[in-house]
Amino acid sequence: MADKVYNFGAGPAMLPEPVMQKIQQEWLDYRGMGVSVIEISHRAKEFVAILEEAQALFRELTNLPENYKILFIHGGARMQFSALPLNLAGRKPGKRCLYFETGNFAKLAAKDAKAFCNLEIAASSAESNYDRIPAYNPAIFTDDVSYVHITGNNTIYGTRWNQFPETGEVPLIADMTSEILSRQVDYSKFGVIYAGMQKNLGPSGMAMVIIREDLLGQASEQTPCLLNYTQAAADNSLTNTTNTFAVYTTKLVLEWLKEQGGVAAIEQRNIEKSAQLYEVIDASDYYRGVAHPEHRSIMNVSFNLPSEELEAKFLKEAGAAGLYALKGHRNVGGIRASIYNPMPLAGIETLASFMREFEKNNG
Amino acid sequence: MADKVYNFGAGPAMLPEPVMQKIQQEWLDYRGMGVSVIEISHRAKEFVAILEEAQALFRELTNLPENYKILFIHGGARMQFSALPLNLAGRKPGKRCLYFETGNFAKLAAKDAKAFCNLEIAASSAESNYDRIPAYNPAIFTDDVSYVHITGNNTIYGTRWNQFPETGEVPLIADMTSEILSRQVDYSKFGVIYAGMQKNLGPSGMAMVIIREDLLGQASEQTPCLLNYTQAAADNSLTNTTNTFAVYTTKLVLEWLKEQGGVAAIEQRNIEKSAQLYEVIDASDYYRGVAHPEHRSIMNVSFNLPSEELEAKFLKEAGAAGLYALKGHRNVGGIRASIYNPMPLAGIETLASFMREFEKNNG
Repeated sequence: MADKVYNFGAGPAMLPEPVMQKIQQEWLDYRGMGVSVIEISHRAKEFVAILEEAQALFRELTNLPENYKILFIHGGARMQFSALPLNLAGRKPGKRCLYFETGNFAKLAAKDAKAFCNLEIAASSAESNYDRIPAYNPAIFTDDVSYVHITGNNTIYGTRWNQFPETGEVPLIADMTSEILSRQVDYSKFGVIYAGMQKNLGPSGMAMVIIREDLLGQASEQTPCLLNYTQAAADNSLTNTTNTFAVYTTKLVLEWLKEQGGVAAIEQRNIEKSAQLYEVIDASDYYRGVAHPEHRSIMNVSFNLPSEELEAKFLKEAGAAGLYALKGHRNVGGIRASIYNPMPLAGIETLASFMREFEKNNG
Repeated sequence: MADKVYNFGAGPAMLPEPVMQKIQQEWLDYRGMGVSVIEISHRAKEFVAILEEAQALFRELTNLPENYKILFIHGGARMQFSALPLNLAGRKPGKRCLYFETGNFAKLAAKDAKAFCNLEIAASSAESNYDRIPAYNPAIFTDDVSYVHITGNNTIYGTRWNQFPETGEVPLIADMTSEILSRQVDYSKFGVIYAGMQKNLGPSGMAMVIIREDLLGQASEQTPCLLNYTQAAADNSLTNTTNTFAVYTTKLVLEWLKEQGGVAAIEQRNIEKSAQLYEVIDASDYYRGVAHPEHRSIMNVSFNLPSEELEAKFLKEAGAAGLYALKGHRNVGGIRASIYNPMPLAGIETLASFMREFEKNNG
């Protein structure tokens, strides 16, 4: 095996090394309590402090306006695909909810929402196999639309919304699972932002939901108690036993991000990191990027080689060189490098060199 | 601080020491992969093996009949309070669902279910502040009942169903959060058994749902995708990114339980452990048990002292002696010792001695 493994998995993804080490160090004895942090009550003052610190750090790192709540909800982003329309059911009952279909998860978000709202696909890039964010007419955001849903970054295809749509008075909702905290975002432009934790925030099994307060109080009566944002806001996400391990780990990740200089600094690094890989792709005809260059993600870099055989060989040799989990999603095949906030520059440089070398030897 | 801390918390609760040590040991490098188990994909073969091993171990330990599915669902038992009636909506539409109100969580289960079914309280022990399982007429389990719901063990009050109701053809559903794997149970008598993980199974944030196959396929169309048992069964609980840490930890706990001799052996130990504490309670007028002796739990031992002042003093001195989290739930006050499977006999002996000593000094 290689001396050092770099984990390019799409999620559950690598966490910052110092965070993983800290968890290990305090695993059996959290701050002298003689028990593990995962063995204490979610209502213990030590845990409530962790939860509130995570919220305060997130607020600080994102300049989140005061009229937004930060919720922790069980189940990842997929659970929000159902929870979101249930929670906004009372806003404009029966009115259209516009979904942009920009990839697999955007499609699933629409599919799951269908049981709970009057769904309409605003635009789709399915025709070009989701290689871009589709063009659309900004005049569609009319007063009779209940909300607009987008997927900020499309993990599988490696595309993203460089410019978010301007929806005016219509609440803009974004699934930011694979890009939260990776770029500076003006949260005041959004009604709800949600993100599964397992990419830029922490371990799998939970989502953060950031909601503008005036959108609370409109849930359908058919909303399961633990998916009700209003209930979660009232109970500060402790209606039941929360996923304490996920909240604890997320707090450590947020502390780490602050030490890295915050979101502006990490965004700059993410731009540089992804640019190094796109440079290799653009410098050759050997590698073909999946995403249209104008819609490229800085979190997931997806590309193909001249043949499936070469892709299989690439993956095998990359694995042996300590470059783990580069296999593309089954929907597009090929190679995908997921390079979330925790991926160090050294990992990018190792992969870029490997790509150049592989092309030389197999071109 | 005391040399050794014993954690009597009700949940998230203590996990077996060897399990916690194993997690720490392989934290940064799972089986030579160079990455942590929480950093690999839920679809990686290494993780799928963990999930399937956990299911196989559970099946082996419980002699679970083959016509039952084992599901992992996000969110703990409370999420099932909504999911259960949604999933059984198609069984006998409009017919009564009988809930036994035997404590706080039983009451919440009924409260959350109300939006999704024709709910009826079969019997309640609210009048005696849930100190017992209420008497009931077994003739109520008629053909026109959709299902019967019980809470196997009532964590707060320290009561349990010693004998489960015989419901005949009517599916019996049990929330076994605080007693799963603590006693031998004939699973074939149940339609669904579910349990939040954070007591006898693993960390918080997820539930195991054991369902008889003929009860699948009856979910309401208004069931959120990730709460749909049929979907979970079809996808082997990998519809979305599961809580990989919880599944992994649970697998280790099940391995540990097998090493302890399985459920029959641990049940015997649980009986002996709880008996030691009940003996101290019964030997004095100083300590008063909350539960009626005929309905005593072997997982949670709740009791009061002669005054609130003495209880406060007891908790303070117990904490200093390394006996952690003995404070009773706010609904009943007093003292509660949660002694799930992982609690070693030494912890019980230390607590029993402390109780005798405290009475002597403060009697």
